[in-house]
Amino acid sequence: MGRTSNAREKILGAARSLMAQRGYSALGTAEICKAAGVPKGSFYYFFESKEALGLAVLDEHWAMQRKDWERVLTGDGAPLDRLRLLFEETEAGQRAGQESCGTVLGCMFGNLSLELSNHTEVIRGRLQEIFDAQVDMVQEVVAQARQRAEITAEDTRDAARAVVAQLEGQVLFAKLYNDSTRLNVMWRNCLAILGAKASGETAGVA
Amino acid sequence: MGRTSNAREKILGAARSLMAQRGYSALGTAEICKAAGVPKGSFYYFFESKEALGLAVLDEHWAMQRKDWERVLTGDGAPLDRLRLLFEETEAGQRAGQESCGTVLGCMFGNLSLELSNHTEVIRGRLQEIFDAQVDMVQEVVAQARQRAEITAEDTRDAARAVVAQLEGQVLFAKLYNDSTRLNVMWRNCLAILGAKASGETAGVA
Repeated sequence: MGRTSNAREKILGAARSLMAQRGYSALGTAEICKAAGVPKGSFYYFFESKEALGLAVLDEHWAMQRKDWERVLTGDGAPLDRLRLLFEETEAGQRAGQESCGTVLGCMFGNLSLELSNHTEVIRGRLQEIFDAQVDMVQEVVAQARQRAEITAEDTRDAARAVVAQLEGQVLFAKLYNDSTRLNVMWRNCLAILGAKASGETAGVA
Repeated sequence: MGRTSNAREKILGAARSLMAQRGYSALGTAEICKAAGVPKGSFYYFFESKEALGLAVLDEHWAMQRKDWERVLTGDGAPLDRLRLLFEETEAGQRAGQESCGTVLGCMFGNLSLELSNHTEVIRGRLQEIFDAQVDMVQEVVAQARQRAEITAEDTRDAARAVVAQLEGQVLFAKLYNDSTRLNVMWRNCLAILGAKASGETAGVA
């Protein structure tokens, strides 16, 4: 079984890499198996469909990213320091991707939301769960900052959604312009959206 | 020639509708011609490639949207009133799409940015031009609001980019959750990003 589970990992790894670069629709299972170096016939032994593989890639990617988000957002520091670290790590991650692949790959969840959400309900549902979980995690930090009277935003759910939306929108532009430095304004915008008090910062303040 | 130009319009219309629903990669020229009701062989008489058709769809869509943006953003009202109207019309447009198609279709430019920007440089370049033009138009209104001391954002370019990024991010979520009412918080977030003075609003203020 060591051998077969190794083939499954190879298929998953190849699919993850190909999806990050070219999306989901343009890929075929034969191409994925070729990139994975496994016989084409073995695909359906491990995955019942391309959609099942897509879900497995999403789940694996979120399991890793979730650990990062939890480490950063549930640490000991002040709430806004933790949130700032999330933005810094996001920028660093996109910069590292750009350096290793030559292009900013963007956010897999955002990419698939726009590519797929209107034509596979199973993947749409999974992406909704992932973004709900992200908003939950950000909302908790926002609520803590609000309790400390460090921000003025009253509806912490709407504020957390706006923060994640700003992140997705800026990552979209970083990908389109292939320029991860575009992300360095995100934190200022986040503070403005939250109505952060001490900083008095808005999008345009250096 | 009346007949041939009519066929070109039919291909364009079918491609636009199919791309809005299913993206670009998943489409084939045969399918587009079938939906357009024109002979498959006529495709290359009008378009030299699928990519050329994709560009034509983008150009046509932006020509229409640009007129709407110009009408709204260069009107006589106060700058922030004009910007607010842009957000209201965006929300109304997504709501109308949801009512007629059953699903929120999102922003064609955002959709294609995430689906395609890393694998067709020609389309990436065109999308960059379109978003540059959008940011230019928003920046002009933001600069006018700044001149009237109605907002505190100092770098009007960064602020305009953040406003368009917030719009794209929220439209992404409206599409993913198939819920156009998610867009009704956009204006509050926009005011917060700009550091609007009179309102004192932030993302969470009702």
